[in-house]
Amino acid sequence: MSKSFSRRGKPAEIREYHTASSGIFFLARRLVHSEQTPFQRIEVYESDSFGRVLLLDGLVQTTERDEFFYHEMLVHPAMMAHPNPREILIIGGGDGGALREVFRYPVRKATLVEIDAAVVAAARDFLPSLAASFRDPRVEIQIADGSRFIQESCRRYDIILVDSSDPVGPSAVLHQRGFYARLKERLKSGGIIASQAGSPLFHQRHLMKKSAFLKKLFKHAAYYFGPTPTYPGGQWCYSFLSDSVNPLERIGKKAPPGLKYYNRDIHTAAFAMPGFLREGID
Amino acid sequence: MSKSFSRRGKPAEIREYHTASSGIFFLARRLVHSEQTPFQRIEVYESDSFGRVLLLDGLVQTTERDEFFYHEMLVHPAMMAHPNPREILIIGGGDGGALREVFRYPVRKATLVEIDAAVVAAARDFLPSLAASFRDPRVEIQIADGSRFIQESCRRYDIILVDSSDPVGPSAVLHQRGFYARLKERLKSGGIIASQAGSPLFHQRHLMKKSAFLKKLFKHAAYYFGPTPTYPGGQWCYSFLSDSVNPLERIGKKAPPGLKYYNRDIHTAAFAMPGFLREGID
Repeated sequence: MSKSFSRRGKPAEIREYHTASSGIFFLARRLVHSEQTPFQRIEVYESDSFGRVLLLDGLVQTTERDEFFYHEMLVHPAMMAHPNPREILIIGGGDGGALREVFRYPVRKATLVEIDAAVVAAARDFLPSLAASFRDPRVEIQIADGSRFIQESCRRYDIILVDSSDPVGPSAVLHQRGFYARLKERLKSGGIIASQAGSPLFHQRHLMKKSAFLKKLFKHAAYYFGPTPTYPGGQWCYSFLSDSVNPLERIGKKAPPGLKYYNRDIHTAAFAMPGFLREGID
Repeated sequence: MSKSFSRRGKPAEIREYHTASSGIFFLARRLVHSEQTPFQRIEVYESDSFGRVLLLDGLVQTTERDEFFYHEMLVHPAMMAHPNPREILIIGGGDGGALREVFRYPVRKATLVEIDAAVVAAARDFLPSLAASFRDPRVEIQIADGSRFIQESCRRYDIILVDSSDPVGPSAVLHQRGFYARLKERLKSGGIIASQAGSPLFHQRHLMKKSAFLKKLFKHAAYYFGPTPTYPGGQWCYSFLSDSVNPLERIGKKAPPGLKYYNRDIHTAAFAMPGFLREGID
């Protein structure tokens, strides 16, 4: 625990800028964990409003209270659209939230490739509601650079989930054409990629550029959207990529029980394109 | 202009709490207008991130940059579902944004009932992109308490839009059963009411309670949802109420040009119910 917290005994304010001159703040009762790794600064705070909050280099990655929006929407559209997803790859996702959603299905194996072992360790120690899935015997954790892993591996997967950080910064490579071309080679027949794609409002130009190459790479390349209270703009964009599966074809199976946001109505609804993105993307 | 701003010459930080211990902040270059009325404190700030921002009693009501999400979603689902909306009533909406959206259709008359004349004046003077519609000869402005207006008036409308502030505070009466029962009596045959209903995440219990009486009052009573970057939780809930029009029936007309968020795909998508609300509402 940070000395400044225990000494002062009153909550500290954590803030994240979403633009150069605006953002969110929350009061943290306690700094639960803080660590500088070779890759980034990891911090976990305890807050009244959002439960435990994980920050990487000062940016909110996940909060106990609202992470379900993001993790359910990253994982379930692809897992539901695939008739029988057995082999899963997650690039990033070191907090374990995406893995937890994947294990709601009878998968055979889930490989998680996280660049920073300390993120996995911090999640295991301090975010148990996300990281409990790391104990599942079907999980294989690879501590590696996701982009390099994809270049060197020759395994293939039914579903690949890209749970990276944002298109600006160290994860930029995970949003580029070359990476997606290589990901495509790692898909089994009938496979699907889903990835987080950023804020429709704040990364609009980036989304349009990305859409152009995704539509050339994949027969079905669609953006979809969901709410994310603690991410910039309150709404998030994801991409659904496949050469064989149309995300809007009728889904034959029931959603797993226990979900808080996703259901089959939400699945279809999520693919409706906001007006301000249509022109550049449709 | 506030002296403290011009003297210091550097931006001031404006913040709004969304929970007891979290919220949003933005830097304001300039306090454009500030006024204490018998009803509330009105402030208009100039900000880099959101353009001009209107606050009532310290709560963000509207920003030039993101108001289109809210105003389009409050107005267009009802206006599009009605085959020929001619007589419109807006309760609240003193900033003029809802009125602007209404005038995208060939309406005959729009009556706006705002309790605080100073809000209309401030919008006219400082939020021209919202308030330009006040100059339309088809608008009738009534400075009155919305709830009392509805009790005393006997006019009927094709569309009634409730553009009130939130269910907690001075507008609480505009979210109660008695008010909706009286609104219903002010609808023409084939009429529709749309109202803002609060944050799905933060007003969840309130939404469930309200849904119970709305479903008894109206044959079609449905919540729908849209993004709102600067409102609590990033997503907002609206209600669609009618005895004759099902909001999900095929819409025969094209959406008016120039919209930034709403389109017919978004219309249908907006009615998908998030899992965490389903249990209490379906």
